[in-house]
Amino acid sequence: MIRISIIGMGLIGVSLGMALRNADAQESPLGPLEVVGYDRDPRAVKEARGRLAIDHEARSLADAVRDAQMVVLATPVRAMRDVLTELATLLPAGTIITDVASTKSEVGQWAAELLPATLSYVGGHPMAGKEQAGAAAADPELFHGAIYCLTVSPHARPQAVEAVEALVRTVGAKPYYIDPAEHDSYVAGISHLPFLLSVGLTSITSHSPAWKEMAALAASGFRDVSRLASGDPAMHRDICLTNAQAMSHWINTMIAFLVEARETITSGDAAAVEAMLRDAKEQRDTWLASRPNLRPGEDAFNRPNQAPDRPNLLTFRRPKG
Amino acid sequence: MIRISIIGMGLIGVSLGMALRNADAQESPLGPLEVVGYDRDPRAVKEARGRLAIDHEARSLADAVRDAQMVVLATPVRAMRDVLTELATLLPAGTIITDVASTKSEVGQWAAELLPATLSYVGGHPMAGKEQAGAAAADPELFHGAIYCLTVSPHARPQAVEAVEALVRTVGAKPYYIDPAEHDSYVAGISHLPFLLSVGLTSITSHSPAWKEMAALAASGFRDVSRLASGDPAMHRDICLTNAQAMSHWINTMIAFLVEARETITSGDAAAVEAMLRDAKEQRDTWLASRPNLRPGEDAFNRPNQAPDRPNLLTFRRPKG
Repeated sequence: MIRISIIGMGLIGVSLGMALRNADAQESPLGPLEVVGYDRDPRAVKEARGRLAIDHEARSLADAVRDAQMVVLATPVRAMRDVLTELATLLPAGTIITDVASTKSEVGQWAAELLPATLSYVGGHPMAGKEQAGAAAADPELFHGAIYCLTVSPHARPQAVEAVEALVRTVGAKPYYIDPAEHDSYVAGISHLPFLLSVGLTSITSHSPAWKEMAALAASGFRDVSRLASGDPAMHRDICLTNAQAMSHWINTMIAFLVEARETITSGDAAAVEAMLRDAKEQRDTWLASRPNLRPGEDAFNRPNQAPDRPNLLTFRRPKG
Repeated sequence: MIRISIIGMGLIGVSLGMALRNADAQESPLGPLEVVGYDRDPRAVKEARGRLAIDHEARSLADAVRDAQMVVLATPVRAMRDVLTELATLLPAGTIITDVASTKSEVGQWAAELLPATLSYVGGHPMAGKEQAGAAAADPELFHGAIYCLTVSPHARPQAVEAVEALVRTVGAKPYYIDPAEHDSYVAGISHLPFLLSVGLTSITSHSPAWKEMAALAASGFRDVSRLASGDPAMHRDICLTNAQAMSHWINTMIAFLVEARETITSGDAAAVEAMLRDAKEQRDTWLASRPNLRPGEDAFNRPNQAPDRPNLLTFRRPKG
């Protein structure tokens, strides 16, 4: 039996707990497990328990991580710095720490600075989410089939990496190893920029004097392009602040696109407008069609679970008592 | 029995034909009807027939509109100018002409310039769509519950307006009367700008040197915000070209937002970033929650169908022979 502590009972933390507790102990490379949940808001812990996402409710961080073999940070990114500071003194040598933050460079740096070398940190980022926040929106299937980025610090022991990969597989996701800086640069383009475009679209239209009339006409196109603006402000605030440089790059690229598009459209050059739109359509259709095959590196991790002769990956790590 | 000719067998034309043919003649204010379909591509007409969207396949525009009481233009916007020019000489006095174009000012001006005063033009724009084009994606339920904008030219006879409103109700949509210039300005913000943001997101990410890796990580957020980029390039080319001024306004507003957002994010001011995101979330959640009640003017058109004592709204208009 291994104990996994999840710190932060938001959408991802609760979904993760549900997915872990739903897993078949016979098939999971983690073997039998129990989940402890903690949040600085006691109501969030209660709600997580109500959704059967955790076996035990913790009343403090110290309480949460006691006897845990693995600690999963699922708070907004910037809160992780304080949590890591506390964990540095709370955790016994050998404990594995991972997180689910949408940006990986800063949290990786904090882990390297704040944690003793006896603790293994492996960064994680499940490429799955919803615009709704909190336990009520949690879903044990959220990670099923999703890419789950893993960023491995130089200090992490191989067994720790293997254990976090086992966690990823247990919740049905696909491990995808990546450098933290590359991760942040890529997700700035395919995740944080789309979020900011949703925010911008919502912001500028809803503050228009004609919004009342416009709102009446807005249909599925507006609904979908604005969807991400309904995401959790605290979570996205931290994403913006911990990925400002990469986001700036993509914002500038988007501004350059808009300037050029405006000139093409107002020039009245029908062929140029159509070429711009046709190219985007081809790119998007290609992405959509080939997406399942477009996950480089996935094959490399597609090895079968090694559960049979190793019922509990983590039994190696902590001497009893 | 009234005859409705649909010119253009794309997504909207075919969906409209299906919705009209599926309607219960007893309940529709149009009464029993037959649908003639035409497209300059004969394969598109065949496909529409295969989807049971039309009763008769026409081989020419003249063939299509013969004996029609109502003609619906469902081609890309700019092609409507040529069609209107031909219709001006083809149609007998009293024929009703409507269209489904996403922009209303230019097509309204063409109708005023090109059509004799004996023909009644009433502009239309169903606020419903899909990113897929053509008969294969057509859906008779596409208009169900959707707002359907109507722009009434000064020359249109009241009976013509009533007949087009009957068409709108027959396909399950909700008539929404609006000035053409206001329509174009509003949809530039809530429809054409979101489309261009989808195109821009797709374009700049897919032309990045790191696209192959980024594509692997792109998940539901990217999928939704980029969705509109898969729309029909010819249709959207015409929308851009016939709504360039209003789109320019919204592009400029979006650029100003992005410049300000970039400065807020790189300043590191957590409270300012959160305020920006929280405001957008509140606006979007409010829109989503109150949307069904946010359709001003809808009540005014919510009168019951007047079918019982008038089985065919259009029988008044054409003497036999």
